[in-house]
Order: sequence, then structure tokens, then C-alpha cells
Amino acid sequence: MTEPQRLSRRGLLGLAGAGAAGLALGGAGGAAVATAIAAQTGSGSGSSGSPSYPFHGEHQAGIVTPAQDRLHFAAFDLAASTTRDDLRELLSDWTYAAERMTRGLEVSESGAVGGSPLAPPDDTGEALDLPPSGLTITFGFGPGLFAERLGLAERRPALLEPLPRFSGDALAPGWTGGDLCVQACADDPQVAVHAIRNLSRIAFGRAAIRWSQLGFGRTSSTSTSQITPRNLFGFKDGTANIKAEESDAVAEYVWARESDGTAWMAGGTYLVARRIRMIIESWDRVQLGEQERIIGRDKGAGAPLSGGTEFTEPDFSRPDDDGSPRIPDDSHVRLAHPSVVGGARLLRRGYNYVDGNDALGRLDAGLFFLSFQRDPEQFVAVQRSLAGHDALNEYIRHVGSAVFAVPPGVPAEGASIGDPLFA
Amino acid sequence: MTEPQRLSRRGLLGLAGAGAAGLALGGAGGAAVATAIAAQTGSGSGSSGSPSYPFHGEHQAGIVTPAQDRLHFAAFDLAASTTRDDLRELLSDWTYAAERMTRGLEVSESGAVGGSPLAPPDDTGEALDLPPSGLTITFGFGPGLFAERLGLAERRPALLEPLPRFSGDALAPGWTGGDLCVQACADDPQVAVHAIRNLSRIAFGRAAIRWSQLGFGRTSSTSTSQITPRNLFGFKDGTANIKAEESDAVAEYVWARESDGTAWMAGGTYLVARRIRMIIESWDRVQLGEQERIIGRDKGAGAPLSGGTEFTEPDFSRPDDDGSPRIPDDSHVRLAHPSVVGGARLLRRGYNYVDGNDALGRLDAGLFFLSFQRDPEQFVAVQRSLAGHDALNEYIRHVGSAVFAVPPGVPAEGASIGDPLFA
Repeated sequence: MTEPQRLSRRGLLGLAGAGAAGLALGGAGGAAVATAIAAQTGSGSGSSGSPSYPFHGEHQAGIVTPAQDRLHFAAFDLAASTTRDDLRELLSDWTYAAERMTRGLEVSESGAVGGSPLAPPDDTGEALDLPPSGLTITFGFGPGLFAERLGLAERRPALLEPLPRFSGDALAPGWTGGDLCVQACADDPQVAVHAIRNLSRIAFGRAAIRWSQLGFGRTSSTSTSQITPRNLFGFKDGTANIKAEESDAVAEYVWARESDGTAWMAGGTYLVARRIRMIIESWDRVQLGEQERIIGRDKGAGAPLSGGTEFTEPDFSRPDDDGSPRIPDDSHVRLAHPSVVGGARLLRRGYNYVDGNDALGRLDAGLFFLSFQRDPEQFVAVQRSLAGHDALNEYIRHVGSAVFAVPPGVPAEGASIGDPLFA
Repeated sequence: MTEPQRLSRRGLLGLAGAGAAGLALGGAGGAAVATAIAAQTGSGSGSSGSPSYPFHGEHQAGIVTPAQDRLHFAAFDLAASTTRDDLRELLSDWTYAAERMTRGLEVSESGAVGGSPLAPPDDTGEALDLPPSGLTITFGFGPGLFAERLGLAERRPALLEPLPRFSGDALAPGWTGGDLCVQACADDPQVAVHAIRNLSRIAFGRAAIRWSQLGFGRTSSTSTSQITPRNLFGFKDGTANIKAEESDAVAEYVWARESDGTAWMAGGTYLVARRIRMIIESWDRVQLGEQERIIGRDKGAGAPLSGGTEFTEPDFSRPDDDGSPRIPDDSHVRLAHPSVVGGARLLRRGYNYVDGNDALGRLDAGLFFLSFQRDPEQFVAVQRSLAGHDALNEYIRHVGSAVFAVPPGVPAEGASIGDPLFA
């Protein structure tokens, strides 16, 4: 299925500000938009000397790509008036703009300064002069997208169910759900913000941001070439994460297959997002030894309390001097371990966040958890284990939650994200 | 005036969680704290290979230091019970911890993992393994600090007045004022966040965060060695900023002198902070030519509309073909220009921010404006000029505001920030 490789008229209207230009199509606004369309022959602002990842491929980028340092994530809701054709056009527009931005280009050929002075610029311009910065843009489809009115109810993946309620969940609607999602990861936050902002503009009238989250520091490695980072509890996080280099594990636990029951999802995956507020002031008052028992690892080196180094496999049977397990039964590392959760493994891509402070001066801080898995049940198994018993629960609150079907990659120019859904 | 070069007992209590440990000084909590104090002989986690700036000097760092990429800024209010001695002790504790952190060390010698397992760690640990990352920590004193009950009313700098109300101000109390401020700038946001978090912990019971702001991208250069960055309107910002290399301008416009009327402020400066929300959705609908007329500069290269390149001095008298000035009279660049504001110049250190979105899906985005000047009147002159007439006002809202006296630097080990105030 091919689409014209430029923005649709509605996409351009979004960039121009449909609220203004759309009301005046016969007048100056219309002329401005027409000029903008005519101006699609200017040159982009390509750049180099900075990591860049190909947009096209069997799988979407931003999943097994080495986790970049910064994140801007947005969940969108479709407008009530959005039709099936509108959705396809939006996905085609997003594909066009995302592919360009991951190359360090502007959202369209005329971009921020190459259009008519009588038209609003297509691109907002804050990433002009900045290199690609390793930008990846990853799209997902929420359960609400598979609606009767869009003719997509029959196409809903059987595995895409809203997540169950977990013990201790304190979810806020403003941080939960969404019909679509866009994950922008980059080494420069300005590049990630620019991507979400301009994709949101393109969506104008068709979809609007429901919630969004900036993450300033990655908390997972997705490649063996990366050093394990620390979360805001001060511990190394994601040591046991699936790494891109573990090709057998990636195939087994990450990529959906045709035999999983939804043919159009083959090569895709499922994304779970959880906004986990950390009660850092309480945590900071916990004794070091107790912190380590809660996590099940040593704080400095990240080694399991059963001994060894960071990457030594934990030995849950090894006893302490008094005969109790060195790694407590209710420790985080044990309750999340594949041996306890029926073999489930996740590919995590989390980020630390700090969003100001509350009225008592406490930082609104935590972990924006993202995991990719072949079946959301993998996450459910881990979270069921943690939610019931994890000693860490006293110090965290799950305040946001969403699940998305992440379609396979766009194989080549001419195709758009989600084409197999409509095929 | 010398202070012991270690944390005070109250500072250690803050790190240990005074709320918990303070209530149980005779019991386990007290023992834990005593152990923490005894453990102050462990080794810090020094590191290298990353920019670092000296903490000690005639002036505080973080002012003419080349602007780092990321910011965490916090305004604090003193607790009602805080005495003059408490304040001095807090400033001594902050000095001790800040000096260490700018070297890439933890807040104390025992740090995150070097203390007793029976005590809460002194350091929260999320910056373990991270280099100094160019961290600078800059302290300021708000008008409320100069209170009778602290014996400081007579010491208030004559130049430190609350800012006047400007036309169009829409200030929210939650983003305004503060008795103290701490500006942490670094090339790694995790390092800046770690600094604010741990200084806030040290202050426990003596001062608490009133408001705080993360900035993800600098919008000013403070050195001629830096490329001019872009703000979220997509324009180069701060081209005409005072640069560290302009030593005459820095001396004339930035550093306070004894002859300015407040001897203890000599070598210090005044800091103005303004949270400026940008109405980016409206801005994005403005024609390119109109955007450029509002700013007074070309969007691509940043050259003034009177011609030349980015660093060409604007010629406000140069007419357009129809005889009107090429740089409109109400343009931002003209109204902020020294020739229009009575010669006033500022040393700016602003940052872009995005703090999620509102219920309509619009990004809560803007500019966190910081400027340093020898006299806050320099800012007032510029802002009076802008607030009344700037064509940009339709697209911005000043929602937060604060002013601080920034004391001179700490000359050497053994002294503390603000010593001259108490001399």
C-alpha cells in the first residue's frame, strides 16, 4: 500500500494552524496554505556527525535501539469526528514527517524558513541546526483505536486488552490510556520535544495529546555496549534487561509472530507504559542495608546479595548466617525474576522524571516505565508478582498506565506505519 | 569566618530523614545517625574526564561559566522556626556539599554506600558513577531572608526590592518568590537533579522547596565559544547577550561593587527569574514574515531585519521599500535593545521547558528566563520596555517571578556562602 510521500492537505493545515487557516480558506489563510503547498520544493536542513538510526525496517526503531538518554512520550486521543480515512491519512503524514526528522530534517521540505513569508512555517524551528541526535520515533495503537466506527473492531489484536487492575494501583485518568502513542527518544531533549510537538501539530483536528511525559535519564540499557544507569532510588536498574544482542531472547520475548493470532502484528510488539511515582523522601530515610534487602542487590556495584558482580545470576537459595535467604523473598529482584514469574521477560526502556514539586516541597519524581513484550501478559505476570508482595511497594505509587499494540516497521519508502492493519 | 568542613549535625539529620530519626534520637534512629557521623571517613567517588568548574573564587560559578545544557532550579522558603544560627549552619552545610558535588563527589564522605548499613545513606546515589558534568551550583538570597527575626533587616541590599508589577503579568504564587534559591546547571540533567535533591534533603527542617523548575535546553550563550541556541519559538535567542569574554561589559553590568551601597555584596550580583509560558499553538499559526517582524530578526540565520549576519548590530533607522523601518518599532529586538532601554544590558542564562500538557492537549511549554545584573533595575528597564509594547506579548505569559541577591563567591576552603552577610 503506497501513499504519496508528502504531507496531506490536512497535515499541512495542521502545521499552518487549522483553527486559523481553516476558517478562512477563501481568503488570506487559504492563500497562505496554498503557498505552503506550492513551496514543498525547498531544501531540508540535513546534518551529520551525530548518531542516526534508520526509520525503515522490519521492526520499528526505538525498541532494540540502544536506549537514548532522553525521552518525550505522548499519548493521543482521536477526535470524535475522525474517520477511518482520516486515521490512515494521519498515519501517512506521521510516517512522512517522522522519517524526515529521524534524518535530522524538518517535518517538510519547506520546513521552518523555506516556505512563503505569507504562510506559517511548516516546522517550528527549534531543532534547526541540531543533528539527528539518535532520534527514534515509535508509534503504538491503544485499545480504543479498534472501534466499530473506524471499521477496526475486527482487527483488534486478541492480545491487546486493557491491563487488569493491580493491587496498590492509584491510577489518574490524566496519566492513563490513549488511542495512539508516540515515543520519541534522542540524545538531545530538544530534538525529542521538537518531534512530539510537530507530530502533534500535524495531527490537529484528527488527534490531540491526552498526556505526555518528559524523561531526563534512561534507566535501562538495551544493549550490552551500554553501562547500566541508576534510577532515583540510587540503584542500578535494568541489569537483567533483555539486550539487543541476545537475539534468541529478543525473538522469543519481544517480536510478535503471525502464529500469535494476529497476522498484521507480525514483527510488531506490545508496549506497556507505567508512570511510577517514587516517594523519595521516605526512601531516603531507609537504612542502607534495608534498601539493599528491598532491592535484593548491593547499592554500589549492583551485585545480587547472594554474591558476585553486577551480572552474576542471583542465587535465591543461598542462606545468610542465620539461615534466612540472603536475597529476601519479598525483594524486588526476586519477585521480578523469570524463575518466579513463569519465565516472563521484558525489554525495558524506562526513564527518570522530575516534574516540579508538591505543596510540601517534595519533588514529584519517579520512573516512567516502558516495556516492550510479545504479549502484554508477560508484563502482567511480572507486575502481579510485584504488586502483591514487593517490599518496594511502600515507596512507589503507580499513577499512570497504558498499553499499546506497536505495529511492525515501515519496510521502505512509499509505505506507512500501520499499513498491514488496513490491508 | 571559618566553619568546620563537614556537615552539621542538623545537616546529617536532614540526610538521614529528620522526620524519622529526629524523633528517636535516644533509640535506633539516634544510633543510626551517630554511626553516620562516625562513618565520615570513607572515600568519595571522585571522577574525571568531564568538564568541571572550580567552586571557589571571587564570584560564584554558574554566572559567567559557559552555559551548560541542563538546569534544575529551586526556590526555598525558610521554616518559621529557623533562626539566624540555623541559617548560617544551613549555608555552611550547603557550601560543604555543593563544593563536593561540583567535583563529582557525593554530598559527604560516606556518601551513598560508604556509611553504616544501619544508617540511611547520606547521598541518594543516582549520580554515582557519573562525572562532574560541568556542574555549577549558585546560591541566592530573596527579599524575605532579610527579616527582623533573623537580625538581617539592616543588612538588606538597597537594590533588592520585590520587582514591580509589569503590564500583562499573570503571576502564580506557586511560581513566584522564595527566601533562597539554588541554581544547578550541568551537562547531564541527572547530575543537576541530584544536586537540588540532596541540598533539599540537607535543608530539612530549616528550609523547604517552594517551587522548582527543570530546563532541558539552554537558550542563551554566555561565552563567545558557544553557538547561539534556539528557543521554542524557533528563533536564535540571546545573540546580543553579554559574554564572559567581554570583561568590560561584565564588570560594568554584572558584578556588584562596594560603591553600589552594600559592601557585603561586592563581587556578587542580582538574579531575576521569570517563568514565561509560551502560547506555542498560537505562535505556530503566525506567518513566517510576521514572526520575523515580531522578533526583528530573520528566523534562519538570526540576522537583524536591517541586514547583515547574526552578529551585525541592528540598524533601527533603515527603512523598508515603503519607508517604514525594516525592524518594526514594536519588535522584540528593538524594545530590548540597550539604545531603547537607557543602556541597560543583562547577562542571560535561560532554559527551554516543557512540563506536560493541559487538558486541551497543548504543551505547557516556554522559557525559564534567568538574568544576572549588577542592579535589578537593569531588568526592570528592559521588561518595562517589553511589557508595554512588545509585539511578542500576544504569545507569552509571565507566570512566575523572583529576584535574589547573589552573594560573592566563597574565596577558599573554610569559608561559606554568605559569610560577608554575617560579618
